[in-house]
Amino acid sequence: MRGSVSPANSRCSIARSLQVVGEKWALLIVRDVQRGHTRFSTLRARLEVAPDVLADRLAKLVELGVLERRGYRTPGERERAEYHLTAAGTDLLPVLAALAAWGDAHVPSGFGPAAIFTDAATGDPVELAFVRADGSRLGLGDVAVVRGPGALEAAPVAP
Amino acid sequence: MRGSVSPANSRCSIARSLQVVGEKWALLIVRDVQRGHTRFSTLRARLEVAPDVLADRLAKLVELGVLERRGYRTPGERERAEYHLTAAGTDLLPVLAALAAWGDAHVPSGFGPAAIFTDAATGDPVELAFVRADGSRLGLGDVAVVRGPGALEAAPVAP
Repeated sequence: MRGSVSPANSRCSIARSLQVVGEKWALLIVRDVQRGHTRFSTLRARLEVAPDVLADRLAKLVELGVLERRGYRTPGERERAEYHLTAAGTDLLPVLAALAAWGDAHVPSGFGPAAIFTDAATGDPVELAFVRADGSRLGLGDVAVVRGPGALEAAPVAP
Repeated sequence: MRGSVSPANSRCSIARSLQVVGEKWALLIVRDVQRGHTRFSTLRARLEVAPDVLADRLAKLVELGVLERRGYRTPGERERAEYHLTAAGTDLLPVLAALAAWGDAHVPSGFGPAAIFTDAATGDPVELAFVRADGSRLGLGDVAVVRGPGALEAAPVAP
């Protein structure tokens, strides 16, 4: 998965992230593990994915540090694997929330949101938003993207 | 790209979003167009992608309503195409910002962020964060995900 970014893209954190999770199954696996579906058999049934594809993606996500593999044993059976999010995996929550918000807005199912992100303490819905250092929110039209120190060219990003 | 989600996933906005943009090139194209690189030749050079792959992805993004194709003509040459973000394309900015923040934290290039999201009015950096209705921010550990009306099962998402 890694190593196939062009030199011009190797400095871009978006490109590097997509090398890790820019594949449909990877983020759907992270979504399901985040929701507590940690076992191979459960993931396979929920995702309706071929077992070899699922095994491959799980191994890559472990190798990349997004998931951690733990053994468990039901009495009388062989040891099986379950998967848990690492800190890096947990940090993908904003990516999932951004995709969920975009999907609800632009490719709605017609049934309303399938997942709602809430304040765990109160159950009230929360939103993903751009915020200034003082905590105030910005609309998307007020956000600009400029080149940082890691950019290969020094000029501003905008045309 | 559409139509390959299982029934269990068709209600999930994350899964539906990934049907549209869950492929590495699609989001890198959106990233570059967002930065003002609107022409086929420029995108091809920047992304180092095979022309047939780029043409295919651009056509799909137009068909899916993320990009809009516009003709332009340099005097004495044939008409060529440039691509602009639709409203749905512009709304992908939080997805890009979430991927950028994750990449900077978990797969850093060693050179610092390549792109910095800023307040267009002041140039000050801004962050993508979960916020409550009253505008206060939550840490990732304070966010829960619960099933919404579009979920196929009515039980809470968490185990």
